[in-house]
Amino acid sequence: MPNLSDATRARLLFGGDYNPEQWPEETWPDDVRLMKAAGVNSVTLGVFSWSELEPAPGERNFGWLDRLMDLMHENGIGVVLATPSASPPPWLGRLHPDTLPRDADGRIELWGGRQHFSHSSATYRRYAAAITEDLAARYGSHPALTMWHINNEYCTFDYGDEAAERFRNWLKARYGTLDALNTAWGTAFWSQRYDTWSGILPPRHAHYMKNPTQLLDFRRFTSDMLLECYVAERDIVRRHTPHIPVTSNFMPLWIGQDAWRWAAEEDVVSVDLYPDPRDPLGAQQGALVQDMTRSQARGPWMLMEQAAGPVNWRGVNHPKPRGLNRLWSLQAVARGADAVCYFQWRQSRQGAEKFHSGMVSHAGERGRTYQEVKQLGAELAAIGPHVSGSHSTADIAVLHDWHSWWAGVQDGRLSTEVDYPAVLRAWHRALWEAHLTTDFAHPEHDLTGYSLVIAPQLYLLTDAAIENLIAYVRQGGTLVCGFLTGVADEDDRVRPGGMDARLRDLFGIRTLHEWWPLDAGESVSCDGFDGTLWSEEIEAEPSVTETIPYKGGELDGLPAVLRKGRAWYVSTLPEPDALRELLTRVAADAQVRPVLDGLPATVEAVRRGDLLFVLNHGREPVTVPVPGTHHDLLTDTTVQDEVRLDRYGVAVLKP
Amino acid sequence: MPNLSDATRARLLFGGDYNPEQWPEETWPDDVRLMKAAGVNSVTLGVFSWSELEPAPGERNFGWLDRLMDLMHENGIGVVLATPSASPPPWLGRLHPDTLPRDADGRIELWGGRQHFSHSSATYRRYAAAITEDLAARYGSHPALTMWHINNEYCTFDYGDEAAERFRNWLKARYGTLDALNTAWGTAFWSQRYDTWSGILPPRHAHYMKNPTQLLDFRRFTSDMLLECYVAERDIVRRHTPHIPVTSNFMPLWIGQDAWRWAAEEDVVSVDLYPDPRDPLGAQQGALVQDMTRSQARGPWMLMEQAAGPVNWRGVNHPKPRGLNRLWSLQAVARGADAVCYFQWRQSRQGAEKFHSGMVSHAGERGRTYQEVKQLGAELAAIGPHVSGSHSTADIAVLHDWHSWWAGVQDGRLSTEVDYPAVLRAWHRALWEAHLTTDFAHPEHDLTGYSLVIAPQLYLLTDAAIENLIAYVRQGGTLVCGFLTGVADEDDRVRPGGMDARLRDLFGIRTLHEWWPLDAGESVSCDGFDGTLWSEEIEAEPSVTETIPYKGGELDGLPAVLRKGRAWYVSTLPEPDALRELLTRVAADAQVRPVLDGLPATVEAVRRGDLLFVLNHGREPVTVPVPGTHHDLLTDTTVQDEVRLDRYGVAVLKP
Amino acid sequence: MPNLSDATRARLLFGGDYNPEQWPEETWPDDVRLMKAAGVNSVTLGVFSWSELEPAPGERNFGWLDRLMDLMHENGIGVVLATPSASPPPWLGRLHPDTLPRDADGRIELWGGRQHFSHSSATYRRYAAAITEDLAARYGSHPALTMWHINNEYCTFDYGDEAAERFRNWLKARYGTLDALNTAWGTAFWSQRYDTWSGILPPRHAHYMKNPTQLLDFRRFTSDMLLECYVAERDIVRRHTPHIPVTSNFMPLWIGQDAWRWAAEEDVVSVDLYPDPRDPLGAQQGALVQDMTRSQARGPWMLMEQAAGPVNWRGVNHPKPRGLNRLWSLQAVARGADAVCYFQWRQSRQGAEKFHSGMVSHAGERGRTYQEVKQLGAELAAIGPHVSGSHSTADIAVLHDWHSWWAGVQDGRLSTEVDYPAVLRAWHRALWEAHLTTDFAHPEHDLTGYSLVIAPQLYLLTDAAIENLIAYVRQGGTLVCGFLTGVADEDDRVRPGGMDARLRDLFGIRTLHEWWPLDAGESVSCDGFDGTLWSEEIEAEPSVTETIPYKGGELDGLPAVLRKGRAWYVSTLPEPDALRELLTRVAADAQVRPVLDGLPATVEAVRRGDLLFVLNHGREPVTVPVPGTHHDLLTDTTVQDEVRLDRYGVAVLKP
Repeated sequence: MPNLSDATRARLLFGGDYNPEQWPEETWPDDVRLMKAAGVNSVTLGVFSWSELEPAPGERNFGWLDRLMDLMHENGIGVVLATPSASPPPWLGRLHPDTLPRDADGRIELWGGRQHFSHSSATYRRYAAAITEDLAARYGSHPALTMWHINNEYCTFDYGDEAAERFRNWLKARYGTLDALNTAWGTAFWSQRYDTWSGILPPRHAHYMKNPTQLLDFRRFTSDMLLECYVAERDIVRRHTPHIPVTSNFMPLWIGQDAWRWAAEEDVVSVDLYPDPRDPLGAQQGALVQDMTRSQARGPWMLMEQAAGPVNWRGVNHPKPRGLNRLWSLQAVARGADAVCYFQWRQSRQGAEKFHSGMVSHAGERGRTYQEVKQLGAELAAIGPHVSGSHSTADIAVLHDWHSWWAGVQDGRLSTEVDYPAVLRAWHRALWEAHLTTDFAHPEHDLTGYSLVIAPQLYLLTDAAIENLIAYVRQGGTLVCGFLTGVADEDDRVRPGGMDARLRDLFGIRTLHEWWPLDAGESVSCDGFDGTLWSEEIEAEPSVTETIPYKGGELDGLPAVLRKGRAWYVSTLPEPDALRELLTRVAADAQVRPVLDGLPATVEAVRRGDLLFVLNHGREPVTVPVPGTHHDLLTDTTVQDEVRLDRYGVAVLKP
Repeated sequence: MPNLSDATRARLLFGGDYNPEQWPEETWPDDVRLMKAAGVNSVTLGVFSWSELEPAPGERNFGWLDRLMDLMHENGIGVVLATPSASPPPWLGRLHPDTLPRDADGRIELWGGRQHFSHSSATYRRYAAAITEDLAARYGSHPALTMWHINNEYCTFDYGDEAAERFRNWLKARYGTLDALNTAWGTAFWSQRYDTWSGILPPRHAHYMKNPTQLLDFRRFTSDMLLECYVAERDIVRRHTPHIPVTSNFMPLWIGQDAWRWAAEEDVVSVDLYPDPRDPLGAQQGALVQDMTRSQARGPWMLMEQAAGPVNWRGVNHPKPRGLNRLWSLQAVARGADAVCYFQWRQSRQGAEKFHSGMVSHAGERGRTYQEVKQLGAELAAIGPHVSGSHSTADIAVLHDWHSWWAGVQDGRLSTEVDYPAVLRAWHRALWEAHLTTDFAHPEHDLTGYSLVIAPQLYLLTDAAIENLIAYVRQGGTLVCGFLTGVADEDDRVRPGGMDARLRDLFGIRTLHEWWPLDAGESVSCDGFDGTLWSEEIEAEPSVTETIPYKGGELDGLPAVLRKGRAWYVSTLPEPDALRELLTRVAADAQVRPVLDGLPATVEAVRRGDLLFVLNHGREPVTVPVPGTHHDLLTDTTVQDEVRLDRYGVAVLKP
Repeated sequence: MPNLSDATRARLLFGGDYNPEQWPEETWPDDVRLMKAAGVNSVTLGVFSWSELEPAPGERNFGWLDRLMDLMHENGIGVVLATPSASPPPWLGRLHPDTLPRDADGRIELWGGRQHFSHSSATYRRYAAAITEDLAARYGSHPALTMWHINNEYCTFDYGDEAAERFRNWLKARYGTLDALNTAWGTAFWSQRYDTWSGILPPRHAHYMKNPTQLLDFRRFTSDMLLECYVAERDIVRRHTPHIPVTSNFMPLWIGQDAWRWAAEEDVVSVDLYPDPRDPLGAQQGALVQDMTRSQARGPWMLMEQAAGPVNWRGVNHPKPRGLNRLWSLQAVARGADAVCYFQWRQSRQGAEKFHSGMVSHAGERGRTYQEVKQLGAELAAIGPHVSGSHSTADIAVLHDWHSWWAGVQDGRLSTEVDYPAVLRAWHRALWEAHLTTDFAHPEHDLTGYSLVIAPQLYLLTDAAIENLIAYVRQGGTLVCGFLTGVADEDDRVRPGGMDARLRDLFGIRTLHEWWPLDAGESVSCDGFDGTLWSEEIEAEPSVTETIPYKGGELDGLPAVLRKGRAWYVSTLPEPDALRELLTRVAADAQVRPVLDGLPATVEAVRRGDLLFVLNHGREPVTVPVPGTHHDLLTDTTVQDEVRLDRYGVAVLKP
């Protein structure tokens, strides 16, 4: 199978979405001039070009794209060629209303925006396959082609009738019999027993809370249907170009796709990353997504989209201050990216995203944005040969599973204050601030290579996952679990005792009497720190090795944290400093050390291959102790024992 | 007519909803063992069992229920048998879409949740009647049967076409002629005059504010349609078992049902009660509902549902701290309950309510929740013979009317800050904190037995109600009315002068110049206290006996409170302490005394029959002065002049 | 063409909407008695009388209106006769569902409220024309008739199929070819290219952001369709009564109508004005609307609706304190109103607006509201001959354009904190507080008569408008522009550089690097003041005359305010005091002086014709310096050098 290295060829890719069909053709030479000046070596073409390529049903209009492919090739710029299936032309919905999705309330999502396609529509799939086939046939052997990009940010739901039919078939495949489905869904509750398959619908509008397992299965089904759409197009291009890698860009930690499963179907894992420049923890948010994507890719990955300046979909869209685009781009490289790309090359003058920045902003060549892009391009070219293809490794794995997330966001749960991504981010933040490099893993993955495994919150755990965790601890691993872990089985059925008995035994929990969720802004005192979000009324087994008790209140003296041997259970969310200190201690016990000691608070350090990246996320200059002698690839200078970083400064150090 | 005593037979009922169809049959003997250990003597079966009982149209599957009825009987546990009509099986909606309700926007409420039935659907009613008929025929003579429970928490609206047709018929019956309807609805406003009955619709989506009387009548109609559904099923079971009492459980102070009218159709008035364990005034909220339900029942009533621990439908669902379940259960008994029941016996492992607690929680037998339930069962058994069937009486009546509430919640009112239930609760709180026991009454009820009548807010008053109030004062009663009382007539037509002239005369109001609603968080100074929510620009008659003026601001010197003889008008909402002091004074003048003097702030005292219940809602122990000698039924000890209560402690004292 | 003076005949009109069909006919003589006592000389009849006039399709019921017209005439009260087309009878929607509008989600807006008509429905237009024709024929020569009032507060949108068809035709007329439309809408973005006219829809529900130019054109289309409805009815009545002026009442600064275009089609410009009596800047809000309306009318205008007391559509609806109704009414006269009218004469007892005040409130004749109305009527009669028909002039124009507003409120913009009307109001407030009288103007209007022109925010500017502004400065005018001006062209296409190059040159802006919108509550330091909402990263040209820099933060030292000659650019929103001081300085430089010097903070002064209005908006008495000798028309006294005003006091001074 091809992979990212087939496209990078020992460089870092640099470039972005290029939508020249929005501009008069006279602009193209200027684009090329500016691209070359900025070191752009990769552009993505055709992401939303369906109505240009197929202006009327069955017609083909490839001339403009031919010229562009040639133009790119002539100028040494590789092309990531996209299938246009994310946004069908208006005529598709007009002639074939069955291609349009419906939301849970029955509203049709019409053309005029984007992504108005039903993943379940046979008609849509047929048209998407046809244009994909023709694109692959026409450009498969074009020398500019370096990668295929299927669709864009798959993210649609459909509750319509064709989706209902596919949902029923999906359920038949999963459960075999109606009895099995009725058992799995617990339809004895509220008189929901199905007597025929035809009675089953997507979870459309209802009077009150819907069946949780129906909702869970509908999420599974949706991820699978989108994946079917992806696979169908991938297989078409792969047939034409078995040597060209294929990708589809993820939105980071988007709830709708089981990215573990998706990544296995991709040659290149790519992601779109847009932290808020104003978020004081924006860099940590970036690091989390980068760690997650690297773990899905099991090697180098592609930053498909980021913004050189502001985006346009927040309430208030802040630009990137001077230096931030460079800093965050190099952070991605440090954490495994072999491609640093943007949406988009030249900022649009029209359409819904005209206030989303481009590498060339409205201010044009003279603008600060392009000038910084140009500087970055030069630097990426300089470090590319040293970094491309190299790996980052970690001794810690954080467990994450979409199915568990899906099961945990139902109505009727104990606390709507518990937000899964926020909990995941809180635990990752503690590790990030402790300079402990981490991978992400699925709970059923082989964990034996890790010294420390952390499950911030795995509400749903399969039996296989539970056995995996227990085996991991048994073979010597250290495991830390957060609250609301091991509560439900694969069908979102609460396990007897409110937590799986094997896990309770693992942690030394005799009885979990009650969950005590906390209100917004409330905290609970523990011995040495405060907890937020959650607490629990736990009776420990005598066999427990160590506990940290709650102090005061109704839970006074009961264990907030339990340890039995190498297995830890944390029944609240410790405040950030406390969680960082706890994990630092647990990591040290597990022989896991930070990347560097004595780092200033604003500095991040990451190793990739034999390189050490040191990044200053602060606005003040800092001096960072780096024992020994290194060569800074960015400044081409020797660094002895310490390196000085300006605001947003970066050093890429080779021993 | 049968009543609750036919089911209690000199005991207190203890138990709850039992949904064994959600569990493997092997669990049932364990259920019985735990029930018996906990003193459970009543379970409710079949509330949501329709799809089990009728798995396909016209089929019957009674075997499992036969075995359960026998099992319960063998173990001395009575059965409250429910008709399953609250949640039709999926096949009903699939085969008969006319049974599904529509909301005001036309969205169909589909199966997959619960209560997806149209109260107006003839098809639904026919199927519901048929299964009710068969249940009654089969179990009418079963020795376990103690009560019928019709449907569950009737609470649906329907704006669909069949509801429209029934609405028109309901209107024809109410008004007789279109002219009468046009007059009542004031259709001369905004060109809304109807020229045919067929032009009248439920108040579906409109461009701007809808006709207020149409909205009011649609609420009346909805309550009546739900009542028709209830009565139809009640009449079926009554035909089979004239000796078995019938109930349907209310949600407390739910806006949709005119519970005064409903209670008149029930043999047993039952209610579901779920104060938030975190609400500092949760006990008062409980007391209000208990007083209301007792007043509707005109005697002992049934607490059909409460939670042994947390519910699962709030944002954050808090468990009950140790002792709170017992305290609030005994409070219900103190205020007239002869049945203390729960939703549900064993916490579900699946479905939308798996995080709603049960008497047996996920933690099982060993869990604190079950252990406390068991203790409570023993105590209820001990006091049962002393309390069952006895009455509570009160000298004070608080007036409440659903029609007035309905008329007052329209769009286009003067202040959306005025929340009727909150105002009602504020006045009840003042009385509760003053240890003044109170009933609730409808404004047209006979009030002559009360020394003091309070109308917190009766925006709509019929002529009959006005005459009733005036007659009550004339015969020597003391009346206190809050603001926004007597504004509208039965058709929500503002009475000339903005308040009925007879009432203005009663209170000594010459002219009500303007209403001055207050903003959120705003208060108005009065002589001696602050008011919130509302104020009024009133010109008093010379004949007024006493006034308390506003101080400062635009209303300076004008009367905030007026008294003319025994009739009081309070044109603002005094802050809690002031309202309590005002009502304490008015009560004293009317010769109404608190239950006990010198009670600590956290203590509630209630008399029922010859028993005195003393309840400590605080978390600190208190000593309560109780003059004389009493026997505490809970501790089987003698109490002399004072009783010490632990945190959440209760004494049930017999002279 | 007739105009307002044909109705006023040297008086001020005083009166309001009169809806006697809501009352028994016995009430009418009492109405007349109270009207005459109050000096009412004008009533508006028939605004919502369609179902009374046409109780069934094609029927006519004019008798009651005949009697009213006669009654008014007999009593010397003129009639503004309304066409009833704002609220069709229920039968119209029932028999012709095509007359009902749909919202973007497809929901039908049904009868039962008001304004449930589709502006695009041929059937609706036909029925509206027919009743208008008959009204005009019957009452065109009635001596009571003084003015025609078409419809009421046009304010509906329609996304239905007939609207879609008209939208397509409107687009064909605007663009001629599909290519032109595709270019204007930028449909190359997101694959939105239209291959047939029939594929174009109103901007209905979509998955994600809709096409901005489609949204902009749909707003243009909606304004035009409503205007077509108006013009159709206007032309009918004009044919019958060419001598009678015609109006339709605006809602102040309502987003849906391009009132510049509308005003050109009206004989009389009228507006409905309802500042919140609790708004500390309510008087400024009033002044803004009055200035805007006067500018649209280019002379005297009509205050069609205001409230004598509270309205009923806010969350909390406050009454008017004593004197406020008089104060604000005289303010309207000061700023050009020749008619002071109310919704409505007598407060309704029924319907959705029964808590909206009337000139005769629920309290009736004795109520404070009517008593104050009566006083005001006498005063208006006294000053009428001195003021009616006279003009106000201003040296300053504030630019405002609906199309620019429409383009700026799209999804996907840089900041949702930027609220166009709030920005407009902030700039007007600065002028109002500086006692600088201002007109409003469209950016393409002839501006040569003004000494100072201010564009608070004109995001979209046509080329013609840009050239107009540049020419204005070139010929010696002073221009001040706020941020987000000149960004987009007529099709909402961002101009290269992010601001039109001609404007950048005008202000001395070399490069606009990035917009820096501010978060809610955030401010940015500038030299001498703080800014809110917005900031910009601007590189000035050397040719710039003067700058005020940002201080600290990322923009430290960059220009916040630039001046090049007489052209100012303000890249943030200065806090109120700073903006007032800035504009005071700029005005002084442009030789524009306040109305009076030394005015107390609470006092407003306005000249109209040769009269000087002095209004105290404070609750404390003040003494106002008024150099020279004047005659106060209200008190009939001589004022020498200063006048004392009580709380809410007014003086109308004649030299």
